[in-house]
Amino acid sequence: MAKKVAYLGPAGTYAEQAAVSYDPDAEGVPCPSIPAVAQAVERGDADEGVVPIENSLQGSVTFTLDLLIHDSNLFIRNELVLPIHHSLLAAPGTRAKDITVIYSHPQALAQCQDYIAKHHPKAEVVASLSTATAVQELAKHGKNAAAIGNLRAAELYGAEVLASNIEDNPNNVTRFVVLGKTPSARTGSDKTSICFWFDDDAPGLLYKVIKSFHELEINLAKIESRPTRESLGRYIFLIDMDGHRDDARVKKALAEVEKQVSILKVFGSYPKAIAPV
Amino acid sequence: MAKKVAYLGPAGTYAEQAAVSYDPDAEGVPCPSIPAVAQAVERGDADEGVVPIENSLQGSVTFTLDLLIHDSNLFIRNELVLPIHHSLLAAPGTRAKDITVIYSHPQALAQCQDYIAKHHPKAEVVASLSTATAVQELAKHGKNAAAIGNLRAAELYGAEVLASNIEDNPNNVTRFVVLGKTPSARTGSDKTSICFWFDDDAPGLLYKVIKSFHELEINLAKIESRPTRESLGRYIFLIDMDGHRDDARVKKALAEVEKQVSILKVFGSYPKAIAPV
Repeated sequence: MAKKVAYLGPAGTYAEQAAVSYDPDAEGVPCPSIPAVAQAVERGDADEGVVPIENSLQGSVTFTLDLLIHDSNLFIRNELVLPIHHSLLAAPGTRAKDITVIYSHPQALAQCQDYIAKHHPKAEVVASLSTATAVQELAKHGKNAAAIGNLRAAELYGAEVLASNIEDNPNNVTRFVVLGKTPSARTGSDKTSICFWFDDDAPGLLYKVIKSFHELEINLAKIESRPTRESLGRYIFLIDMDGHRDDARVKKALAEVEKQVSILKVFGSYPKAIAPV
Repeated sequence: MAKKVAYLGPAGTYAEQAAVSYDPDAEGVPCPSIPAVAQAVERGDADEGVVPIENSLQGSVTFTLDLLIHDSNLFIRNELVLPIHHSLLAAPGTRAKDITVIYSHPQALAQCQDYIAKHHPKAEVVASLSTATAVQELAKHGKNAAAIGNLRAAELYGAEVLASNIEDNPNNVTRFVVLGKTPSARTGSDKTSICFWFDDDAPGLLYKVIKSFHELEINLAKIESRPTRESLGRYIFLIDMDGHRDDARVKKALAEVEKQVSILKVFGSYPKAIAPV
Protein backbone atom coordinates (compact mmCIF):
# COMPACT_ATOMS: atom_id res chain seq x y z
CA MET A 1 0.00 0.00 0.00
CA ALA A 2 1.37 3.39 -0.98
CA LYS A 3 2.36 5.76 1.80
CA LYS A 4 -0.15 8.57 2.35
CA VAL A 5 1.15 12.12 2.61
CA ALA A 6 -1.19 14.91 3.74
CA TYR A 7 -0.56 18.46 2.52
CA LEU A 8 -2.13 21.91 2.51
CA GLY A 9 -4.39 21.57 -0.52
CA PRO A 10 -6.05 21.57 -2.92
CA ALA A 11 -3.90 19.71 -5.47
CA GLY A 12 -1.69 22.18 -7.34
CA THR A 13 -0.44 24.20 -4.36
CA TYR A 14 3.26 24.67 -3.67
CA ALA A 15 2.74 22.42 -0.63
CA GLU A 16 1.57 19.63 -2.94
CA GLN A 17 4.61 20.25 -5.14
CA ALA A 18 6.80 19.86 -2.03
CA ALA A 19 4.94 16.68 -1.02
CA VAL A 20 5.38 15.17 -4.48
CA SER A 21 9.10 16.01 -4.52
CA TYR A 22 9.40 14.40 -1.08
CA ASP A 23 7.77 11.13 -2.13
CA PRO A 24 6.66 10.86 -5.77
CA ASP A 25 5.05 7.45 -5.13
CA ALA A 26 2.95 8.50 -2.15
CA GLU A 27 -0.78 9.00 -2.30
CA GLY A 28 -1.52 12.69 -1.65
CA VAL A 29 -4.15 13.65 0.92
CA PRO A 30 -5.17 17.30 0.39
CA CYS A 31 -6.28 19.10 3.58
CA PRO A 32 -8.03 22.48 3.89
CA SER A 33 -5.72 24.02 6.54
CA ILE A 34 -2.41 23.57 8.36
CA PRO A 35 -4.09 22.20 11.53
CA ALA A 36 -6.09 19.79 9.32
CA VAL A 37 -2.81 18.37 7.93
CA ALA A 38 -1.63 17.61 11.49
CA GLN A 39 -5.01 16.12 12.39
CA ALA A 40 -4.92 13.84 9.35
CA VAL A 41 -1.60 12.41 10.57
CA GLU A 42 -2.75 12.18 14.20
CA ARG A 43 -5.94 10.33 13.21
CA GLY A 44 -3.98 7.97 10.96
CA ASP A 45 -5.63 9.20 7.74
CA ALA A 46 -2.09 9.93 6.49
CA ASP A 47 1.35 8.61 7.42
CA GLU A 48 3.05 11.98 7.17
CA GLY A 49 2.05 15.58 6.56
CA VAL A 50 3.81 18.41 4.70
CA VAL A 51 3.32 22.01 5.91
CA PRO A 52 5.15 25.26 5.07
CA ILE A 53 7.20 26.67 7.96
CA GLU A 54 9.25 29.53 6.51
CA ASN A 55 9.58 31.64 3.37
CA SER A 56 12.78 33.48 2.47
CA LEU A 57 10.86 36.73 1.84
CA GLN A 58 7.90 36.58 4.21
CA GLY A 59 9.50 34.85 7.18
CA SER A 60 7.95 32.23 9.44
CA VAL A 61 4.58 30.67 8.82
CA THR A 62 3.23 31.44 12.27
CA PHE A 63 0.26 29.01 11.91
CA THR A 64 2.78 26.17 11.72
CA LEU A 65 4.92 27.44 14.60
CA ASP A 66 1.86 27.87 16.82
CA LEU A 67 0.60 24.42 15.82
CA LEU A 68 3.92 22.85 16.85
CA ILE A 69 4.00 24.84 20.11
CA HIS A 70 0.41 24.49 21.28
CA ASP A 71 -1.60 21.95 19.36
CA SER A 72 0.45 18.99 18.19
CA ASN A 73 2.88 16.41 19.50
CA LEU A 74 3.93 15.22 16.06
CA PHE A 75 7.64 15.12 15.26
CA ILE A 76 9.36 17.08 12.52
CA ARG A 77 10.81 14.18 10.50
CA ASN A 78 12.26 16.06 7.53
CA GLU A 79 12.64 19.47 5.92
CA LEU A 80 12.18 20.36 2.24
CA VAL A 81 13.36 23.52 0.54
CA LEU A 82 11.36 24.47 -2.55
CA PRO A 83 12.18 27.37 -4.90
CA ILE A 84 8.97 29.28 -5.61
CA HIS A 85 8.40 30.09 -9.28
CA HIS A 86 5.12 31.77 -10.12
CA SER A 87 3.45 31.66 -13.53
CA LEU A 88 0.64 33.70 -15.05
CA LEU A 89 -2.02 31.21 -16.09
CA ALA A 90 -5.31 31.55 -17.97
CA ALA A 91 -7.97 29.51 -19.76
CA PRO A 92 -6.69 28.21 -23.13
CA GLY A 93 -6.95 30.84 -25.87
CA THR A 94 -6.76 33.83 -23.52
CA ARG A 95 -4.51 36.63 -24.79
CA ALA A 96 -2.27 38.38 -22.22
CA LYS A 97 -3.40 41.80 -23.45
CA ASP A 98 -7.05 40.98 -22.67
CA ILE A 99 -6.43 40.27 -18.96
CA THR A 100 -8.49 42.59 -16.74
CA VAL A 101 -8.45 40.61 -13.49
CA ILE A 102 -5.77 38.48 -11.77
CA TYR A 103 -6.63 35.96 -9.03
CA SER A 104 -4.25 34.40 -6.52
CA HIS A 105 -3.38 33.93 -2.87
CA PRO A 106 -2.50 37.35 -1.37
CA GLN A 107 1.13 36.29 -0.77
CA ALA A 108 1.59 35.27 -4.42
CA LEU A 109 -0.02 38.54 -5.57
CA ALA A 110 2.36 40.46 -3.29
CA GLN A 111 5.36 38.51 -4.62
CA CYS A 112 4.48 39.44 -8.23
CA GLN A 113 3.38 43.04 -7.70
CA ASP A 114 6.19 44.59 -9.80
CA TYR A 115 5.41 42.19 -12.65
CA ILE A 116 1.70 43.03 -12.46
CA ALA A 117 2.41 46.78 -12.31
CA LYS A 118 4.64 46.53 -15.38
CA HIS A 119 2.67 44.15 -17.58
CA HIS A 120 -0.93 44.50 -16.36
CA PRO A 121 -1.08 47.92 -14.70
CA LYS A 122 -4.86 48.19 -15.14
CA ALA A 123 -5.75 44.67 -14.02
CA GLU A 124 -7.73 44.25 -10.83
CA VAL A 125 -6.08 41.87 -8.35
CA VAL A 126 -8.40 39.62 -6.35
CA ALA A 127 -7.53 37.35 -3.42
CA SER A 128 -8.11 33.58 -3.53
CA LEU A 129 -7.81 31.02 -0.74
CA SER A 130 -4.79 29.41 -2.42
CA THR A 131 -2.84 29.66 -5.67
CA ALA A 132 -4.34 26.32 -6.71
CA THR A 133 -7.91 27.52 -6.07
CA ALA A 134 -7.22 30.56 -8.24
CA VAL A 135 -6.19 28.33 -11.15
CA GLN A 136 -8.97 25.80 -10.49
CA GLU A 137 -11.65 28.50 -10.67
CA LEU A 138 -10.35 30.22 -13.83
CA ALA A 139 -13.19 28.88 -15.96
CA LYS A 140 -15.71 30.40 -13.54
CA HIS A 141 -14.13 33.84 -13.83
CA GLY A 142 -14.64 34.43 -17.54
CA LYS A 143 -12.45 35.16 -20.53
CA ASN A 144 -10.48 38.09 -19.17
CA ALA A 145 -9.25 36.39 -15.99
CA ALA A 146 -5.76 35.14 -15.17
CA ALA A 147 -4.38 33.40 -12.09
CA ILE A 148 -0.94 33.24 -10.51
CA GLY A 149 0.14 29.72 -9.61
CA ASN A 150 2.64 26.99 -10.43
CA LEU A 151 3.09 24.84 -13.53
CA ARG A 152 1.66 21.80 -11.76
CA ALA A 153 -1.63 23.63 -11.21
CA ALA A 154 -1.65 24.61 -14.91
CA GLU A 155 -1.29 20.93 -15.82
CA LEU A 156 -3.87 19.70 -13.31
CA TYR A 157 -6.55 22.20 -14.22
CA GLY A 158 -5.84 22.59 -17.95
CA ALA A 159 -4.67 26.20 -17.83
CA GLU A 160 -2.39 27.84 -20.37
CA VAL A 161 0.92 29.40 -19.30
CA LEU A 162 1.05 33.07 -20.39
CA ALA A 163 4.32 33.85 -18.58
CA SER A 164 6.72 31.98 -16.30
CA ASN A 165 9.01 32.99 -13.42
CA ILE A 166 7.10 36.21 -12.85
CA GLU A 167 8.14 36.49 -9.17
CA ASP A 168 9.76 39.88 -8.43
CA ASN A 169 12.52 38.51 -6.21
CA PRO A 170 14.41 35.46 -7.52
CA ASN A 171 15.42 34.51 -3.94
CA ASN A 172 11.94 33.17 -3.25
CA VAL A 173 12.24 29.87 -1.43
CA THR A 174 9.87 28.12 0.97
CA ARG A 175 10.95 25.64 3.61
CA PHE A 176 8.43 22.88 4.39
CA VAL A 177 8.57 20.36 7.24
CA VAL A 178 7.32 16.78 7.18
CA LEU A 179 5.36 15.84 10.32
CA GLY A 180 4.92 12.28 11.54
CA LYS A 181 4.27 10.18 14.64
CA THR A 182 7.81 8.85 15.00
CA PRO A 183 11.17 10.66 15.19
CA SER A 184 13.84 10.49 12.47
CA ALA A 185 17.06 8.59 13.07
CA ARG A 186 20.46 10.28 13.18
CA THR A 187 22.12 10.71 9.76
CA GLY A 188 25.21 12.71 10.75
CA SER A 189 23.95 15.89 9.06
CA ASP A 190 20.91 16.85 11.06
CA LYS A 191 19.06 19.76 12.56
CA THR A 192 17.05 19.91 15.78
CA SER A 193 14.12 22.26 16.40
CA ILE A 194 12.95 23.14 19.89
CA CYS A 195 10.82 25.64 21.75
CA PHE A 196 11.01 26.70 25.39
CA TRP A 197 9.68 29.31 27.75
CA PHE A 198 10.14 30.69 31.24
CA ASP A 199 7.49 31.14 33.94
CA ASP A 200 9.64 33.88 35.49
CA ASP A 201 10.48 37.12 33.77
CA ALA A 202 13.96 37.55 35.30
CA PRO A 203 16.54 39.29 33.10
CA GLY A 204 19.25 37.13 31.59
CA LEU A 205 17.31 33.85 31.33
CA LEU A 206 17.49 33.72 27.53
CA TYR A 207 21.17 34.71 27.67
CA LYS A 208 21.93 31.66 29.85
CA VAL A 209 20.22 29.30 27.40
CA ILE A 210 22.12 30.72 24.43
CA LYS A 211 25.35 30.55 26.46
CA SER A 212 24.77 26.83 27.15
CA PHE A 213 24.57 26.13 23.42
CA HIS A 214 27.55 28.37 22.70
CA GLU A 215 29.76 26.65 25.30
CA LEU A 216 28.99 23.26 23.77
CA GLU A 217 29.81 24.71 20.34
CA ILE A 218 26.34 24.11 18.98
CA ASN A 219 25.53 26.41 16.08
CA LEU A 220 22.10 28.04 16.28
CA ALA A 221 20.63 28.30 12.80
CA LYS A 222 17.52 30.29 13.76
CA ILE A 223 16.02 32.01 16.76
CA GLU A 224 12.47 33.24 16.80
CA SER A 225 9.86 34.29 19.35
CA ARG A 226 6.10 33.78 19.52
CA PRO A 227 3.59 35.16 22.01
CA THR A 228 2.61 32.97 24.98
CA ARG A 229 -0.99 34.17 24.45
CA GLU A 230 -1.06 34.88 28.18
CA SER A 231 0.24 38.43 28.31
CA LEU A 232 1.92 40.93 26.04
CA GLY A 233 5.66 40.89 26.45
CA ARG A 234 5.96 37.20 27.45
CA TYR A 235 7.36 34.98 24.73
CA ILE A 236 7.96 31.41 23.67
CA PHE A 237 11.37 31.05 22.03
CA LEU A 238 12.04 28.74 19.10
CA ILE A 239 15.54 27.64 18.16
CA ASP A 240 16.83 25.54 15.26
CA MET A 241 20.31 24.14 15.88
CA ASP A 242 22.79 22.00 13.99
CA GLY A 243 22.98 18.40 15.17
CA HIS A 244 20.71 15.52 16.21
CA ARG A 245 19.27 15.12 19.69
CA ASP A 246 21.11 11.80 19.89
CA ASP A 247 24.47 13.55 19.29
CA ALA A 248 26.36 13.65 22.60
CA ARG A 249 26.83 17.45 22.60
CA VAL A 250 23.23 18.22 21.63
CA LYS A 251 21.96 15.77 24.24
CA LYS A 252 24.10 17.43 26.91
CA ALA A 253 23.01 20.95 25.89
CA LEU A 254 19.33 20.01 25.88
CA ALA A 255 19.68 18.45 29.35
CA GLU A 256 21.27 21.67 30.64
CA VAL A 257 18.69 23.90 28.98
CA GLU A 258 15.87 21.78 30.36
CA LYS A 259 17.03 22.77 33.88
CA GLN A 260 17.00 26.48 32.99
CA VAL A 261 13.56 26.76 31.39
CA SER A 262 10.01 26.04 32.54
CA ILE A 263 9.02 23.98 29.51
CA LEU A 264 11.26 22.54 26.81
CA LYS A 265 9.60 20.89 23.82
CA VAL A 266 11.71 19.17 21.17
CA PHE A 267 9.86 19.25 17.83
CA GLY A 268 12.32 16.77 16.39
CA SER A 269 15.70 16.07 14.82
CA TYR A 270 15.77 15.57 11.08
CA PRO A 271 18.16 15.46 8.11
CA LYS A 272 19.27 18.91 7.00
CA ALA A 273 18.03 19.82 3.51
CA ILE A 274 21.14 19.94 1.32
CA ALA A 275 19.89 21.97 -1.63
CA PRO A 276 16.58 23.15 -3.01
CA VAL A 277 14.56 20.17 -4.23
CA MET B 1 -3.28 74.23 14.05
CA ALA B 2 -4.10 70.77 15.39
CA LYS B 3 -1.45 68.09 15.13
CA LYS B 4 -2.12 65.58 12.35
CA VAL B 5 -1.85 61.88 13.18
CA ALA B 6 -1.92 59.30 10.37
CA TYR B 7 -3.26 55.80 11.10
CA LEU B 8 -4.22 52.58 9.37
CA GLY B 9 -7.78 53.41 8.36
CA PRO B 10 -10.59 53.80 7.65
CA ALA B 11 -12.01 55.59 10.69
CA GLY B 12 -13.28 53.06 13.22
CA THR B 13 -10.31 50.67 13.16
CA TYR B 14 -8.46 49.71 16.33
CA ALA B 15 -5.54 51.75 14.98
CA GLU B 16 -7.76 54.83 14.92
CA GLN B 17 -8.86 54.04 18.48
CA ALA B 18 -5.15 53.91 19.46
CA ALA B 19 -4.48 57.20 17.62
CA VAL B 20 -7.37 58.93 19.38
CA SER B 21 -6.24 57.67 22.78
CA TYR B 22 -2.73 58.95 21.99
CA ASP B 23 -3.90 62.47 21.11
CA PRO B 24 -7.64 63.15 21.38
CA ASP B 25 -7.19 66.66 19.93
CA ALA B 26 -5.26 65.64 16.83
CA GLU B 27 -6.73 65.59 13.37
CA GLY B 28 -6.80 61.98 12.14
CA VAL B 29 -5.41 61.12 8.71
CA PRO B 30 -6.69 57.67 7.63
CA CYS B 31 -4.30 55.74 5.35
CA PRO B 32 -4.99 52.59 3.31
CA SER B 33 -1.92 50.58 4.42
CA ILE B 34 0.96 50.48 6.92
CA PRO B 35 3.51 51.79 4.34
CA ALA B 36 1.05 54.58 3.45
CA VAL B 37 1.05 55.72 7.12
CA ALA B 38 4.85 56.05 7.03
CA GLN B 39 4.72 57.84 3.68
CA ALA B 40 2.16 60.34 5.01
CA VAL B 41 4.60 61.26 7.80
CA GLU B 42 7.62 61.34 5.48
CA ARG B 43 5.83 63.62 3.00
CA GLY B 44 4.66 65.92 5.80
CA ASP B 45 0.96 65.14 5.31
CA ALA B 46 0.93 64.11 8.97
CA ASP B 47 3.11 64.95 11.97
CA GLU B 48 3.07 61.43 13.36
CA GLY B 49 1.74 58.01 12.36
CA VAL B 50 0.28 55.16 14.42
CA VAL B 51 0.82 51.56 13.25
CA PRO B 52 0.26 48.20 14.98
CA ILE B 53 3.49 46.33 15.78
CA GLU B 54 2.51 43.37 17.96
CA ASN B 55 -0.56 41.52 19.20
CA SER B 56 -0.51 39.38 22.34
CA LEU B 57 -2.14 36.44 20.52
CA GLN B 58 -0.91 36.74 16.92
CA GLY B 59 2.61 38.04 17.51
CA SER B 60 4.49 40.62 15.50
CA VAL B 61 2.94 42.62 12.69
CA THR B 62 5.60 41.72 10.15
CA PHE B 63 4.55 44.49 7.72
CA THR B 64 5.55 47.03 10.37
CA LEU B 65 8.83 45.28 11.24
CA ASP B 66 9.81 45.04 7.56
CA LEU B 67 8.86 48.70 7.03
CA LEU B 68 11.14 49.76 9.89
CA ILE B 69 13.97 47.52 8.64
CA HIS B 70 13.87 48.20 4.91
CA ASP B 71 11.69 51.10 3.92
CA SER B 72 11.65 53.87 6.49
CA ASN B 73 13.99 56.03 8.51
CA LEU B 74 11.29 57.37 10.80
CA PHE B 75 11.82 57.10 14.55
CA ILE B 76 9.62 55.19 16.95
CA ARG B 77 8.58 58.04 19.26
CA ASN B 78 6.08 56.26 21.50
CA GLU B 79 4.29 53.00 22.14
CA LEU B 80 0.60 52.48 22.94
CA VAL B 81 -0.95 49.33 24.36
CA LEU B 82 -4.63 48.88 23.51
CA PRO B 83 -6.89 46.10 24.86
CA ILE B 84 -8.88 44.65 21.96
CA HIS B 85 -12.59 44.21 22.65
CA HIS B 86 -14.68 43.00 19.76
CA SER B 87 -18.42 43.60 19.43
CA LEU B 88 -21.05 42.04 17.19
CA LEU B 89 -22.63 44.90 15.27
CA ALA B 90 -25.54 45.10 12.86
CA ALA B 91 -27.88 47.58 11.16
CA PRO B 92 -30.43 49.01 13.64
CA GLY B 93 -33.37 46.67 14.16
CA THR B 94 -31.49 43.48 13.27
CA ARG B 95 -32.21 40.56 15.59
CA ALA B 96 -29.29 38.34 16.64
CA LYS B 97 -31.23 35.20 15.72
CA ASP B 98 -31.66 36.37 12.11
CA ILE B 99 -27.91 36.68 11.44
CA THR B 100 -26.81 34.46 8.54
CA VAL B 101 -23.51 36.13 7.59
CA ILE B 102 -20.76 37.79 9.65
CA TYR B 103 -18.20 40.15 8.09
CA SER B 104 -14.84 41.21 9.55
CA HIS B 105 -11.09 41.25 9.12
CA PRO B 106 -9.80 37.63 9.12
CA GLN B 107 -7.86 38.22 12.39
CA ALA B 108 -11.00 39.47 14.18
CA LEU B 109 -13.01 36.52 12.82
CA ALA B 110 -10.29 34.16 14.08
CA GLN B 111 -10.27 35.85 17.50
CA CYS B 112 -14.05 35.33 17.88
CA GLN B 113 -14.37 31.85 16.39
CA ASP B 114 -15.54 30.16 19.60
CA TYR B 115 -18.17 32.86 20.09
CA ILE B 116 -19.38 32.45 16.50
CA ALA B 117 -19.43 28.65 16.79
CA LYS B 118 -21.50 28.88 19.99
CA HIS B 119 -23.96 31.66 19.12
CA HIS B 120 -24.10 31.64 15.31
CA PRO B 121 -23.00 28.12 14.30
CA LYS B 122 -24.75 28.35 10.93
CA ALA B 123 -23.59 31.85 9.97
CA GLU B 124 -21.24 32.22 7.03
CA VAL B 125 -18.08 34.18 7.88
CA VAL B 126 -16.76 36.52 5.20
CA ALA B 127 -13.44 38.42 5.16
CA SER B 128 -13.29 42.23 4.97
CA LEU B 129 -10.28 44.48 4.47
CA SER B 130 -10.61 45.87 8.01
CA THR B 131 -13.01 45.66 10.94
CA ALA B 132 -14.09 49.23 10.18
CA THR B 133 -14.86 48.40 6.53
CA ALA B 134 -17.01 45.48 7.69
CA VAL B 135 -19.11 47.83 9.87
CA GLN B 136 -19.15 50.60 7.25
CA GLU B 137 -20.56 48.26 4.60
CA LEU B 138 -23.26 46.68 6.79
CA ALA B 139 -26.06 48.53 5.01
CA LYS B 140 -24.86 47.12 1.69
CA HIS B 141 -25.00 43.55 2.99
CA GLY B 142 -28.70 43.33 3.78
CA LYS B 143 -30.82 42.59 6.80
CA ASN B 144 -29.20 39.34 7.92
CA ALA B 145 -25.64 40.61 8.08
CA ALA B 146 -23.51 41.38 11.14
CA ALA B 147 -19.96 42.69 11.47
CA ILE B 148 -17.29 42.29 14.14
CA GLY B 149 -15.68 45.59 15.11
CA ASN B 150 -15.26 48.05 17.94
CA LEU B 151 -17.72 50.38 19.64
CA ARG B 152 -16.19 53.40 17.93
CA ALA B 153 -17.03 51.93 14.51
CA ALA B 154 -20.60 51.29 15.74
CA GLU B 155 -20.90 54.95 16.69
CA LEU B 156 -19.29 56.27 13.50
CA TYR B 157 -21.36 54.17 11.12
CA GLY B 158 -24.63 54.04 13.08
CA ALA B 159 -24.57 50.30 13.83
CA GLU B 160 -26.34 48.64 16.72
CA VAL B 161 -24.41 46.61 19.31
CA LEU B 162 -25.81 43.06 19.50
CA ALA B 163 -23.07 41.75 21.85
CA SER B 164 -19.90 43.11 23.43
CA ASN B 165 -16.56 41.60 24.46
CA ILE B 166 -17.07 38.60 22.21
CA GLU B 167 -13.33 37.88 21.86
CA ASP B 168 -12.48 34.29 22.84
CA ASN B 169 -9.29 35.13 24.74
CA PRO B 170 -9.51 38.03 27.19
CA ASN B 171 -5.71 38.58 26.96
CA ASN B 172 -6.11 40.25 23.60
CA VAL B 173 -3.93 43.33 23.51
CA THR B 174 -2.28 45.16 20.60
CA ARG B 175 0.84 47.28 20.88
CA PHE B 176 1.03 50.22 18.47
CA VAL B 177 4.03 52.46 17.81
CA VAL B 178 3.98 56.16 16.95
CA LEU B 179 6.35 57.07 14.10
CA GLY B 180 7.76 60.54 13.55
CA LYS B 181 10.66 62.43 12.02
CA THR B 182 12.36 63.32 15.31
CA PRO B 183 13.48 61.11 18.22
CA SER B 184 11.88 61.18 21.68
CA ALA B 185 13.76 62.65 24.63
CA ARG B 186 14.82 60.57 27.62
CA THR B 187 12.15 60.22 30.34
CA GLY B 188 13.92 57.80 32.72
CA SER B 189 11.52 54.93 31.88
CA ASP B 190 12.23 54.20 28.27
CA LYS B 191 12.65 51.39 25.77
CA THR B 192 14.96 51.21 22.75
CA SER B 193 14.26 49.19 19.60
CA ILE B 194 17.02 48.17 17.22
CA CYS B 195 17.73 45.77 14.37
CA PHE B 196 21.05 44.42 13.17
CA TRP B 197 22.50 41.79 10.88
CA PHE B 198 25.75 40.09 9.95
CA ASP B 199 27.29 39.73 6.50
CA ASP B 200 29.16 36.65 7.74
CA ASP B 201 27.46 33.48 8.86
CA ALA B 202 30.02 32.52 11.54
CA PRO B 203 28.64 30.68 14.58
CA GLY B 204 28.42 32.61 17.82
CA LEU B 205 27.90 36.11 16.38
CA LEU B 206 24.44 36.53 17.89
CA TYR B 207 25.71 35.12 21.18
CA LYS B 208 28.36 37.86 21.38
CA VAL B 209 25.77 40.59 20.84
CA ILE B 210 23.49 39.22 23.54
CA LYS B 211 26.50 38.83 25.84
CA SER B 212 27.39 42.52 25.38
CA PHE B 213 23.93 43.54 26.55
CA HIS B 214 24.02 41.02 29.40
CA GLU B 215 27.39 42.25 30.69
CA LEU B 216 26.10 45.82 30.78
CA GLU B 217 23.00 44.58 32.64
CA ILE B 218 20.62 45.70 29.93
CA ASN B 219 17.37 43.76 30.02
CA LEU B 220 16.20 42.54 26.61
CA ALA B 221 12.41 42.76 26.44
CA LYS B 222 12.03 41.06 23.05
CA ILE B 223 14.11 39.28 20.46
CA GLU B 224 12.79 38.48 17.04
CA SER B 225 14.13 37.54 13.61
CA ARG B 226 13.07 38.47 10.09
CA PRO B 227 14.37 37.19 6.75
CA THR B 228 17.06 39.23 4.98
CA ARG B 229 15.21 38.52 1.70
CA GLU B 230 18.56 37.50 0.27
CA SER B 231 18.72 33.84 1.14
CA LEU B 232 16.88 31.36 3.31
CA GLY B 233 18.56 30.92 6.67
CA ARG B 234 20.02 34.46 6.87
CA TYR B 235 18.22 36.71 9.34
CA ILE B 236 17.86 40.25 10.56
CA PHE B 237 17.53 40.34 14.35
CA LEU B 238 15.30 42.79 16.18
CA ILE B 239 15.75 43.55 19.87
CA ASP B 240 13.74 45.71 22.26
CA MET B 241 15.66 46.64 25.39
CA ASP B 242 15.00 48.61 28.55
CA GLY B 243 16.61 52.06 28.60
CA HIS B 244 17.12 55.11 26.37
CA ARG B 245 19.91 55.37 23.83
CA ASP B 246 21.13 58.43 25.75
CA ASP B 247 21.51 56.35 28.94
CA ALA B 248 25.23 55.76 29.54
CA ARG B 249 24.95 51.95 29.67
CA VAL B 250 22.74 51.67 26.58
CA LYS B 251 25.01 54.05 24.69
CA LYS B 252 28.03 51.93 25.61
CA ALA B 253 26.31 48.66 24.66
CA LEU B 254 25.15 50.02 21.29
CA ALA B 255 28.69 51.24 20.53
CA GLU B 256 30.04 47.77 21.28
CA VAL B 257 27.36 45.99 19.30
CA GLU B 258 27.93 48.30 16.35
CA LYS B 259 31.47 46.91 16.12
CA GLN B 260 30.22 43.31 16.10
CA VAL B 261 27.52 43.57 13.43
CA SER B 262 27.45 44.60 9.77
CA ILE B 263 24.54 47.01 10.08
CA LEU B 264 22.96 48.40 13.24
CA LYS B 265 19.79 50.46 12.88
CA VAL B 266 18.25 52.12 15.94
CA PHE B 267 14.49 52.54 15.38
CA GLY B 268 14.27 54.83 18.37
CA SER B 269 14.05 55.26 22.13
CA TYR B 270 10.64 56.05 23.56
CA PRO B 271 8.71 56.11 26.84
CA LYS B 272 7.64 52.66 27.99
CA ALA B 273 3.85 52.21 27.99
CA ILE B 274 2.84 51.92 31.63
CA ALA B 275 -0.54 50.28 31.34
CA PRO B 276 -3.13 49.62 28.65
CA VAL B 277 -4.59 52.91 27.42
